[in-house]
Amino acid sequence: MTHWVRLLDWVLGIMAVGSIWYSIHNFKSVKKILVGRPLRTAELYSQHTKLFWFIALPILAADLYSSVAYGPEAGLSELAPFGEAAKWLLIPITIAAVLLLGILILSYIMGILAYPNGGGAYAIAKDNFKSKWIALVASSSLLIDYILTVAVSISAAMEALVSAYPILVPYKTVLAIVCVLLLVIFNLRGVAESARILAWPTICFMVCMLVIITVGFIDGFQHGFIKESTPRIGKIPEGLSLLILLKAFSSACSALTGIETISNSVPVFREPQQKNAIKAYIELGTITSVTIVGFSFHLYVNGISVNPNNTMLSQLTSIYFGSGIIYQLIIWFTFIVLILAANSTFNGFSQLGAIVAGDGFLPRALLNRGDRLGYSNGIIVLASFAALLIICFQAHTNSLIPLYAIGVFLSFSIAQIGLIRRWLKVKGPYWQLKFAVNIVGAIITTIVAIIFSVTKFSGGAWIVLIVLPIFILFSLAIHRHYEAIMLELELDLRTFPVTKEVISIVLVSGVHRIVNNTLTFAKSLNDEVIAVYIGYDDEAIHQMKEKWADWGTPCRLICLKSKYRSLIEPLSRLIKVIEEKHEDKLIHVLIPQFIPVKWWHNLLHNQSALLLRIWFLYHKDIAITTVPYHLKK
Amino acid sequence: MTHWVRLLDWVLGIMAVGSIWYSIHNFKSVKKILVGRPLRTAELYSQHTKLFWFIALPILAADLYSSVAYGPEAGLSELAPFGEAAKWLLIPITIAAVLLLGILILSYIMGILAYPNGGGAYAIAKDNFKSKWIALVASSSLLIDYILTVAVSISAAMEALVSAYPILVPYKTVLAIVCVLLLVIFNLRGVAESARILAWPTICFMVCMLVIITVGFIDGFQHGFIKESTPRIGKIPEGLSLLILLKAFSSACSALTGIETISNSVPVFREPQQKNAIKAYIELGTITSVTIVGFSFHLYVNGISVNPNNTMLSQLTSIYFGSGIIYQLIIWFTFIVLILAANSTFNGFSQLGAIVAGDGFLPRALLNRGDRLGYSNGIIVLASFAALLIICFQAHTNSLIPLYAIGVFLSFSIAQIGLIRRWLKVKGPYWQLKFAVNIVGAIITTIVAIIFSVTKFSGGAWIVLIVLPIFILFSLAIHRHYEAIMLELELDLRTFPVTKEVISIVLVSGVHRIVNNTLTFAKSLNDEVIAVYIGYDDEAIHQMKEKWADWGTPCRLICLKSKYRSLIEPLSRLIKVIEEKHEDKLIHVLIPQFIPVKWWHNLLHNQSALLLRIWFLYHKDIAITTVPYHLKK
Repeated sequence: MTHWVRLLDWVLGIMAVGSIWYSIHNFKSVKKILVGRPLRTAELYSQHTKLFWFIALPILAADLYSSVAYGPEAGLSELAPFGEAAKWLLIPITIAAVLLLGILILSYIMGILAYPNGGGAYAIAKDNFKSKWIALVASSSLLIDYILTVAVSISAAMEALVSAYPILVPYKTVLAIVCVLLLVIFNLRGVAESARILAWPTICFMVCMLVIITVGFIDGFQHGFIKESTPRIGKIPEGLSLLILLKAFSSACSALTGIETISNSVPVFREPQQKNAIKAYIELGTITSVTIVGFSFHLYVNGISVNPNNTMLSQLTSIYFGSGIIYQLIIWFTFIVLILAANSTFNGFSQLGAIVAGDGFLPRALLNRGDRLGYSNGIIVLASFAALLIICFQAHTNSLIPLYAIGVFLSFSIAQIGLIRRWLKVKGPYWQLKFAVNIVGAIITTIVAIIFSVTKFSGGAWIVLIVLPIFILFSLAIHRHYEAIMLELELDLRTFPVTKEVISIVLVSGVHRIVNNTLTFAKSLNDEVIAVYIGYDDEAIHQMKEKWADWGTPCRLICLKSKYRSLIEPLSRLIKVIEEKHEDKLIHVLIPQFIPVKWWHNLLHNQSALLLRIWFLYHKDIAITTVPYHLKK
Repeated sequence: MTHWVRLLDWVLGIMAVGSIWYSIHNFKSVKKILVGRPLRTAELYSQHTKLFWFIALPILAADLYSSVAYGPEAGLSELAPFGEAAKWLLIPITIAAVLLLGILILSYIMGILAYPNGGGAYAIAKDNFKSKWIALVASSSLLIDYILTVAVSISAAMEALVSAYPILVPYKTVLAIVCVLLLVIFNLRGVAESARILAWPTICFMVCMLVIITVGFIDGFQHGFIKESTPRIGKIPEGLSLLILLKAFSSACSALTGIETISNSVPVFREPQQKNAIKAYIELGTITSVTIVGFSFHLYVNGISVNPNNTMLSQLTSIYFGSGIIYQLIIWFTFIVLILAANSTFNGFSQLGAIVAGDGFLPRALLNRGDRLGYSNGIIVLASFAALLIICFQAHTNSLIPLYAIGVFLSFSIAQIGLIRRWLKVKGPYWQLKFAVNIVGAIITTIVAIIFSVTKFSGGAWIVLIVLPIFILFSLAIHRHYEAIMLELELDLRTFPVTKEVISIVLVSGVHRIVNNTLTFAKSLNDEVIAVYIGYDDEAIHQMKEKWADWGTPCRLICLKSKYRSLIEPLSRLIKVIEEKHEDKLIHVLIPQFIPVKWWHNLLHNQSALLLRIWFLYHKDIAITTVPYHLKK
C-alpha cells in the first residue's frame, strides 16, 4: 500500500508545482474557470443566474456535509470511557443517525412542496400558529444554534488544522478567534462573493471523503477487513447504560445539522425549481449517508480512538496515506469546508435576525444594512457570541457539542407540526401522504429533541434550556416596547402644528467670533434672544458685563454666578424661572461649539457644549441647537 | 532579648484589646482625640487653622520621611552582586546622602526666604527666566516624578506588606492597582480630609524607626557591635567600579525625594511663618538624618541582604522583635506612611498640573474641578500613568528606582539657578551668603542630576530622558495651539451680528407625534420650513406623500430616495443644492429625537439622529437642532 501512496504523492507534487506555474502565467483564465463571473448575493436570486441542481447542491451542502467531519467523533467520544469494547457501537449509532437523516429529508421535501418559495421554521410557524411565541421558539432556537454552528465549525476546523500541525495546539483558541474576526471582515466588507467558487471546496471535500472510503474498502479486500486493531463486535461493555448510548447517539446527530439549508433556498434552483430542489435533497442525503456510514465503518475497522489533539479523520487518513500531500489536501479541504459552513451561517443568522427584527421581536438595529451588503449588526452580534463560546470552551468541539443541535431539532419539530396543521387546513393532492410523513417526522424529531435535552442536560444543554426562554421573554418584551411606542406616537390627523412664541437662550463664554457666529444665527431666527454668561466669580462677571457693553449690547445679557463651577446647575435654575414666567412660550437653547481641525484637538478643549447638550436632552423638554464654528487652524 | 520582646508583645496585645473595647464604647471622643474637627483642604490655609510647626512637620514630612523605608535598600541592591564584601559601603553612601540632604535643606531654606508664600520650582523658574521652556523643564520633570512617586511609594508599601504576609507575593501587582484605585476614589470623592489625622501615622512611623534604632544600639551595647553576621569593613570588592558606586549612591538618594514639600507649603505654618518653616526643615532634616544613618548602620551590623520578597526593614525588625505585635505594628505603619506619601502626591500633581494648564501649557481639562474638591482629571491622569508603571514593573520598587529622582534633582537644579539669578537681581540683606549657598546647592544638585542620568541611564533613566523632551515639546505645541485659537477667535468689536434669512429643514420619518412636535417648533421659529423624507423605495415615498396630503400638508415636503439605505448621502446632496441656490441664507437642520424612559431602551432604536448630528457637525457649517420628545412609556 505505502508504495503506490508514495508514488501518488510524487505525481501530485509535480502536478501541483506545474499547475501553480501555469496559473501564475494564465491567471485570468484560471480565475475565470475556477471562480466564474463575480456574483453579488442579490444576483443569486435573479432569473439568469439560477443554478443547475448539481451546482446548487455543493453550495448548499457545505453546512450539512461538513458536519460529517466531527459527527462520528462526537458520538464516539461519549463512549470513550468504555474503551475498545464500546467502539463497535459507532456502527449502530451511525445507522440510526442515517435513518433519522432519511426521515428528516423526507419531511423537508414536504416543506418544499408546501412552501416552494422557501420557508424556514420561523416562516412556517408564523404562518400556521396564532400564538406569536411558537414562531419565536423556532426563530430563537435557530438563532442560538447558528451561533453554536459558527463556534463548533470553527473549532472543528482548528482541530483539523492542529491534527496536521501539532505545534499549533497551544494557539487553537487564538487562531479560532482570528478566524471569526476574518469572517466578520469578510462578511462586513461584503466581498462580492461568487456562488460558484463556494462549490469547489465542498466538491473537493466530498471527493476526498469518497476516496478515503474507497481506499479503505480496497485495503479491506486486499488485506481482509479484520485487522489486529479491529475491536471485537457485539459485546455491550459493562456499565454502559441506555442513557449514555442515547447521549452518544445525540452527539453523533450533530452531523445532521445544516439540513434545513436547501429548503430555505428553493428559489436558487433552475426551473422546475421544486423538482430540482427535491432531487438535490435526495442526492445530498445519499452522499451524506454513504459518507457517514463508510467513514464510521473504517473508523471501527481501524480501531481508531478519540484523541483531543488529532481528529479521527486525520488519524484514519494518515493510516491510509501517511502524512504526504494527499493527507495535507484532505486536512486543508476539511478545514476550508468547515470555515465555509461557518461563513454560510453568518448569512443565515443575519437574514433570520433581520426578518424577526422586522416583525418587531428583536432590536431594529438588526435591520440596518451596512454600506455594502449584509446586515452589519447581525454579523457582529453572531461573531461576538460565537467568539465568547469559543473562548469559554477553549475551541474544543466535543465540549461544545452538548449545547448543539437541540435548537435545530426544536425548530425541526415546530416546522413539522406547522406543516401538519397546514395539510389539515389546505389539503390538496395526496395530502394524506404528506400529512403522514410529517406526523412521523414530528414525532421522531420531538423524541430526538427530548432525548437531546435529557441526555445532554448536565453536559451543557441546560445553558441552552435557560438561555432560550430568557431570549424569548426578551423578544416579547421588545415587541411590547415597540407596540407601546407606536401607540404613543400615533397622531390624530386633526392635530396640526400650532406655532408659539420662542425664547432663544444663547450661551456665551466671552466676546469672540464664535459667540458672534451663534448670535447671528439666533437673531436671524428669532427676535427674543437672551445671552447667558456663567461666571465663577464676581470679577469675571464684571469683566464680561463691561465687554458686552463695549461691544454695543447685541442683545440682553444675563450673568449667572456658579459657586461650584458647574454650568448645568445655574442654567437649569434659570430655565425653570423662564418656564414658570412664560408658560405659553417654547424655550430654545443655542450652544456654540467650535470644531477643531483635527479631532484629537478636542482633547485640548473642555467638552462643556457636549455635556450640556446631553444633560438637557435627557432632563428638559427644550430644543437644543448646536451652532458649529469650524476653526481653520 | 527575646524574653522581654515576648513580654512586650503580650502587654501590647492586652492594651490593644482594651483600647479597641474602649474606642467602641467611646467612639465619638476617641475620634475627636485622634481626628480632631474635620477640615477641608481650603481651610488648611485659613487664618485660624494655621499649624504649629510640630504638627505641620509630620504632615508635610510623610513624603520625605517615608522614603527612608526604601532608600538604603535601593542603594544596597545595586551592590548586591558583590555580596558580603560590598555591604559596608552602605555606610559611606548613606553619609554622602545625608550630606546632600543637608545641602538641599539649606538651599530650600533660601527658597523660603525668597518666596515666603511658597514657590515651587515652576514658580521660581517662571519668575526668574525669560524663556518659557526652562519653567516647563521644571514642571514637566516634577510631574513625571510625581507619577513615579506614586508608583514607587505604592510598590514599596506592597513590599512591606508581602514581607509580613508572604502568601500575598503573587498578588502584589493586583493589590498595588487596587490601592491606586482606592486613592483615586478617595481623592475624587474629596473626603473632607483632616490635616491632623495625617500627622499620626507619620509620627508613629518615626517613633517606630527611632525605637528600632535605639533597640539596635541597646542590643549592640549588650552583645557587642560586631556579630557573626557583620561583614568585614574597608575592603573594596573586586570589579567594583566608580560607576557602580555612584549608581548605588544615586539609588540611595531616592530617600531624599519629597524634600520640596515644606517650601511649597509655608503659608500653612503659624506666624512667624518663615521662622517656623525653617525650624521644621531643620528638625525634619535632623530626624531624617539620624534615622537613615542609624538604620543603615544596623543593616550593616546585622549583615542584612537584599531579598525581593522581604524588605530589609522587615528583616531588621524581625531580628529584634520576632514576628509578634511590634513587628506587625512597624510593618503596618510603614505601609500606611507609604500610602500617605502616594496620597499627598495626588494633591501635588493635580495642583501643579492645574497651574501649568492655567498658563496654557497643558490641556485645559486639568483645570476642571470635580463636583467636590480636587482637580478630577489630574487625579485620573496621575493614577492611570502610575498604574501603568506599576503593571509594567510588576510593582517592584528596585526596578522603578532607576527612573526615579532624576526629575526631582533636575527641578532642584533649576530652582537653585533661578534663586541665584534672583539674588543677583533683587539682592537684599546677606544676599551674598544666600547667593553662595545656592551656588553650592546648584553645583551639587546639577552634578547629582548628571550622575543620576549617567549611572541609571541603561537601567531605565533613558525612559525619563526620552519622555521628558517629548513632554516639553507637547506642552509647547499645546501652548501654540491655544494661542493660535485665541488669535483666530479675536473679534473686531465693530463686527456686529447681522441677521439673515434662514431655511429650516426638518427631517421626518413619517407622520406621528414626534414629527408634529418638531414641526411645531420649526414653524414657531421660522416661516420657511421644508420637511425632508428619505425613503428606501418608491412605495415608501408614495405612501409618505399620501399621508402628508392626508395630514393637510403642514409645510412643503421633499422626498429623497436612498438606494444605499444611507441618510447622509441624499441629505448632504440636498443641502449642497440649497446652499448653491440660496447663498445669502443660513441653513438650519432640525432633527427629531425621541428619548426613551430608560437609557437602555436606546439599544432598541436606531441612533440615526445622533449619527446624523455628528456627521453634520464635522462636515457642514450649519446649525443643527435636536428637538427631544420624551416618551412616557
